[in-house]
Amino acid sequence: MTFRAPVRDLAFALRHVADFGRLADAYPEADADTVDAVLEAAGVFASEVLAPINRQGDLVGAKLENGVVRSAPGFADAYKAFAEAGWTSLAASPDHGGQGLPKALEIATLEMVQAANMAFGLCPMLSLGAIEALALHGTDRHKSVFLPKLVSGEWTGTMNLTEPQAGSDLAALTTMATPDGQGGYTLSGQKIFITWGDHDATDNIVHLVLARTPDAPPGVKGISLFLASKVLVDDEGKMGAGNDVRVGGLEHKLGIHGSPTCVMLFEGAKAELVGKLHQGVAHMFTMMNAARLQVGAQGTAIAERAYQQALNFSLERVQGRSAWTGAYPSRLFDHPDVRRTLLLMKAKIEAARGICLSTAVAADLAHAAADEETRAAAKLREELLTPIAKAWSTDVGVEVASLGVQIHGGMGFIEETGAAQHYRDARITPIYEGTNGIQAIDLIGRKLGLADGQAVADLMDDIRDTIEALKAAEASLTPVASRLEAALNAAASATAWLVERRARAMPDALSGATAYLKLLGDTVGGWMLAKGALAPEAEALRGQLLRVYAESVLAQVPGQLAAVTLGDADIVAVTPEALGVH
Amino acid sequence: MTFRAPVRDLAFALRHVADFGRLADAYPEADADTVDAVLEAAGVFASEVLAPINRQGDLVGAKLENGVVRSAPGFADAYKAFAEAGWTSLAASPDHGGQGLPKALEIATLEMVQAANMAFGLCPMLSLGAIEALALHGTDRHKSVFLPKLVSGEWTGTMNLTEPQAGSDLAALTTMATPDGQGGYTLSGQKIFITWGDHDATDNIVHLVLARTPDAPPGVKGISLFLASKVLVDDEGKMGAGNDVRVGGLEHKLGIHGSPTCVMLFEGAKAELVGKLHQGVAHMFTMMNAARLQVGAQGTAIAERAYQQALNFSLERVQGRSAWTGAYPSRLFDHPDVRRTLLLMKAKIEAARGICLSTAVAADLAHAAADEETRAAAKLREELLTPIAKAWSTDVGVEVASLGVQIHGGMGFIEETGAAQHYRDARITPIYEGTNGIQAIDLIGRKLGLADGQAVADLMDDIRDTIEALKAAEASLTPVASRLEAALNAAASATAWLVERRARAMPDALSGATAYLKLLGDTVGGWMLAKGALAPEAEALRGQLLRVYAESVLAQVPGQLAAVTLGDADIVAVTPEALGVH
Repeated sequence: MTFRAPVRDLAFALRHVADFGRLADAYPEADADTVDAVLEAAGVFASEVLAPINRQGDLVGAKLENGVVRSAPGFADAYKAFAEAGWTSLAASPDHGGQGLPKALEIATLEMVQAANMAFGLCPMLSLGAIEALALHGTDRHKSVFLPKLVSGEWTGTMNLTEPQAGSDLAALTTMATPDGQGGYTLSGQKIFITWGDHDATDNIVHLVLARTPDAPPGVKGISLFLASKVLVDDEGKMGAGNDVRVGGLEHKLGIHGSPTCVMLFEGAKAELVGKLHQGVAHMFTMMNAARLQVGAQGTAIAERAYQQALNFSLERVQGRSAWTGAYPSRLFDHPDVRRTLLLMKAKIEAARGICLSTAVAADLAHAAADEETRAAAKLREELLTPIAKAWSTDVGVEVASLGVQIHGGMGFIEETGAAQHYRDARITPIYEGTNGIQAIDLIGRKLGLADGQAVADLMDDIRDTIEALKAAEASLTPVASRLEAALNAAASATAWLVERRARAMPDALSGATAYLKLLGDTVGGWMLAKGALAPEAEALRGQLLRVYAESVLAQVPGQLAAVTLGDADIVAVTPEALGVH
Repeated sequence: MTFRAPVRDLAFALRHVADFGRLADAYPEADADTVDAVLEAAGVFASEVLAPINRQGDLVGAKLENGVVRSAPGFADAYKAFAEAGWTSLAASPDHGGQGLPKALEIATLEMVQAANMAFGLCPMLSLGAIEALALHGTDRHKSVFLPKLVSGEWTGTMNLTEPQAGSDLAALTTMATPDGQGGYTLSGQKIFITWGDHDATDNIVHLVLARTPDAPPGVKGISLFLASKVLVDDEGKMGAGNDVRVGGLEHKLGIHGSPTCVMLFEGAKAELVGKLHQGVAHMFTMMNAARLQVGAQGTAIAERAYQQALNFSLERVQGRSAWTGAYPSRLFDHPDVRRTLLLMKAKIEAARGICLSTAVAADLAHAAADEETRAAAKLREELLTPIAKAWSTDVGVEVASLGVQIHGGMGFIEETGAAQHYRDARITPIYEGTNGIQAIDLIGRKLGLADGQAVADLMDDIRDTIEALKAAEASLTPVASRLEAALNAAASATAWLVERRARAMPDALSGATAYLKLLGDTVGGWMLAKGALAPEAEALRGQLLRVYAESVLAQVPGQLAAVTLGDADIVAVTPEALGVH
């Protein structure tokens, strides 16, 4: 199946949904022509270089041979071409060799990369996290020796957080960093689930590692961030001996087989402190928002890929008589139930895309807007939307990939068809970079309280503006205004209930965390589609997608309030014994 | 992970949800002690013999070697033990060597088999279809030579329907059956997706094959049903030469690797007509209801397996601080969001189980009730519930298997954990034996019209009786009555709209087919849980499950009406070009 990079849809979403135009002052070089040219070129690279090796990546995967990882067929060469073409440096600062373009444009290009080949896309995605960490917290040496190599893509980066006993719970990690008496540290410990922890696409790999120092306070307050490169590098950037970092094994995973997921063994590895001692978790969280948004875009991406595959199949496969045309045999596309499903898939993709790109535009404004007020408001918006972008979009990824299999019928269950790979690949996205349950807890535990509730109040004000615009628009859009308004009212009620319970009965609030994230995400998704349909140059499809979404998704939002406000009374009393476990 | 056969839950569901007691007159031998003993023994077999070989079945799978299929490790021996223990003959007629027990009890036992090892369970499941076909439509020779061997499990059966160009669309099939001049037929053609089409667990395999005869009318009216055994058998039951049936290949599938999915090549195979010429599709549909119900039970089963695995993990894995107890580290089970998810999984499983077992009890009554009126009413109920049992339960299977992965966090994505296998295995159930889209079309196209709408009216009357009982019950159940009533009212509105549209604008009705099946299924599922909670001996858990389901699922049902009644206006105009396909 060929992959068509959704260049037009991304350009539309940037301009008419995510308000990319607000970045004009801060990023004057990101004008319309540049955006179009960047998207077009990224689309060509994704569809012509990365998509063709996706299936081999799944079939053959990465291999551990004699202690080193051999990348899946074609991946190392593709990575080199990717770096040479400048795709690793798009949004990095020109101070470190980057192109200084907005993150929103980077997210748009990477969405196409992830859609073409998610296992591949993880490699540059992890490097971006390392770039962000070193740009914000690195020493002069880090910025002169390591950062330019990461920005140019000559080297790649990794994030080493998880240990067997410490997944969502970073406080439990035990990897030790002992001062070596020469200003450095010696790392000892085991990290698991390290994405692209080793490979043969570059000469060096920059590992960022969370670890404890001796006598550090217990819990998250005793954790610091360290840099340990695969090959040691002197201050002039010259590579020397190998470091004592070893790959202990590769995981056998459900999907993304082309992405080597490593057990990393630090056995006295030389390491350097990044940022301040005992501030490792805080430093790590400064990159976390960006990483979570990237994963949200992956959810959108895998949904786009699965949708395209299902759409193509529905146009080729003939089966049965169409209730519309009476023709026999008819394309699956000409059966009402199938076409409705395809439209709903497409609507959810556009909603998720809009959420992720809006979050990215907020991040760019928070970083680069001229006035403090705009930066502060944008920061609130970025923080509020990030858990929704991550969790809601990745849930859409899994759902749409599953519908994609379904539209294929029996062929969808056969691996050669390709739909099954998307279903397998998609399943990691609600898990990594903080499970979607963690995102929901973050949303009600931290984000609802931001600026005393101003973050969520601002969001709702903006949605109300769009509802007014829908009411004033052409007749075909006015019924949607009621749907979106009812959804927003439910979101407001749910928020008020949670804010009240948060303060005095946290378990009640936490019991409805996932339900709340879905309720708010469904509502924000409808807002995104409404903005698209209201755009002056919107094609008929934008209104059709909005109406299908309004009746299929928004109409169910008020009914979700009950799940948010159910509280914990019926679950607190349930024991394992009552569930049959003895 | 160990599998605990849900013997107590099944016994409870049979008695208090599915009204198994109504079978007392027709099946006097199926008394309480017998039911308990059968469930207990099946549970032991499933958990001790079948569950332990499930992972090897997935890892190694069935293999094609020198033209014959070698079963996955341990499967052939397990099958022999399964047959020797009498599990293939439970509900077959004593006329053919069966035990004559109710199908509802058979479904309950097979649910445990499917949960323990779905790839294995498919083998006896397909034999049941062949048994049903031959018992209803076979010649004396079929009944004396083949049927007893299928009932005893000495041989297995297959159903050969699908061809590359004919999946959901049987009218398109082209396999030819040419009279051989001696009263028999010669079969030529290729069938695909043939479950357990070949294996080494028995000496012979009985293939039932849909094919056309020369000069038959086109379309489904020209299709007949044939029997072609792997090894030819004379009238005394003596096996002779091999037949010209060959395995052309095995599919490489997303899941159920232990189940050989064969391309079958009939190359002049000797075959015998089953039933009447050109009545093949009608004969096939007499077994189809039973097969669809079996798949629904598979959906329940894989959800049960995935839920148990997630529950066990949530009790073993400690991570973070519980908002309830303040203890650190706490079990995942002690985090409110996780426990809510587990309860919702369990509630959906019990709802699906109730629907499947209720359908089976209706089938038993339709077959064996003493009076004609009961049989007729039960037949309507069986026909109406079958697409819901198949589609709703298998959607629950996929959803719960996905939640099961999610609860494991990163470990869920690692194949060794086992959760991923359930996610892969589950995905076939919404597809085979008629995709869930086909079930939805069957529901609105055929089932709503049954007895002029009496089938659905009767169902709603029964649900109303339970709503009245909820209103009269203890205070903790009365709020649920409003939720179930609102859901039922929405179901009634949706039904009325569809019945009106069906008659004059079928594409409008078809556009909402899947949405309607979900709406009605969610409602019927709530009814099942309500019956359980109202049972005199119900434990507290039954009320807890009902309330979680009522607020999380039933509360959203009224909002689903909009998706049912949206019509086709916004999709009929959408072209592939508007979706970016050129």
